[in-house]
Amino acid sequence: MIILGIDPGYAIIGYGIIDTSKTNMVIDYGAITTPKEDSLAIRLQSIENSLKFLFEKFKPDVVAIEELFYFKNQKTVIQVAQARGVIVLACQKYCGNIYEYTPLQIKQALTGQGRAEKAQVQYMVKAILGLNSIPKPDDAADALAVAICHSQTSSILNQNKL
Amino acid sequence: MIILGIDPGYAIIGYGIIDTSKTNMVIDYGAITTPKEDSLAIRLQSIENSLKFLFEKFKPDVVAIEELFYFKNQKTVIQVAQARGVIVLACQKYCGNIYEYTPLQIKQALTGQGRAEKAQVQYMVKAILGLNSIPKPDDAADALAVAICHSQTSSILNQNKL
Repeated sequence: MIILGIDPGYAIIGYGIIDTSKTNMVIDYGAITTPKEDSLAIRLQSIENSLKFLFEKFKPDVVAIEELFYFKNQKTVIQVAQARGVIVLACQKYCGNIYEYTPLQIKQALTGQGRAEKAQVQYMVKAILGLNSIPKPDDAADALAVAICHSQTSSILNQNKL
Repeated sequence: MIILGIDPGYAIIGYGIIDTSKTNMVIDYGAITTPKEDSLAIRLQSIENSLKFLFEKFKPDVVAIEELFYFKNQKTVIQVAQARGVIVLACQKYCGNIYEYTPLQIKQALTGQGRAEKAQVQYMVKAILGLNSIPKPDDAADALAVAICHSQTSSILNQNKL
């Protein structure tokens, strides 16, 4: 099963693709970025175009996306949520099989601890995927974490289907 | 000039289309609704499909959309912002000429008063468009208000270009 994990954002969106049928699971990871000089409309279109490219290139069977939680800064939450709407729609159009996980579920799945530190989650991403170093940027590591979370929990957590 | 006004939302999105070259300016108005039984992904896709239909049917020259402001309920703001991202992207793809206005700018343009009551704005929508009654639902009246706001202010407020 090819899983595309997504860490949603506006200026930077992490992605990570794993194939659970292989020993070396990692296929690709990285980040989509949108320049802050561009307008909202242009940035949203560029997010959709980049995701379309990933779907066409890697043909994931399923998408796992992190749920959006509350921020202190309302302007940031509006921007990230607007981008996440575009991301979810692209996943629906190009894959149709989407699951979402809370940060707590992701931490729990990777470390056994819902309150684990970010560094501990990143260490487990590296360990589980057999990588030489922690994937960079952090957004890509977070995206791989949600993909791993799905691979470990999808059989029992059907309530996460979006 | 054909203007599509949009009052963004998640469960209900108001729209109003006016043609400023005609005496009877109103072409159409109404609301796109998404059933709460459906998943986020399905609801976002249905919003995009409905907007695509409106763009193909009415071929607006420009879109005027209300800016999203802060809510008390963070869950609501995330849902509406996710939908607004999809709405802005659809406007970008099917029209490419988008302006956004704050509630204050809309009230100011319609009533001369940035702090006008909702009822006063709706009364002015009816009066300016020469309608027999206030358009329903409220979301459609709000969408017509942002379209009127654009028709009255676009020449001087280029900073509203999105």
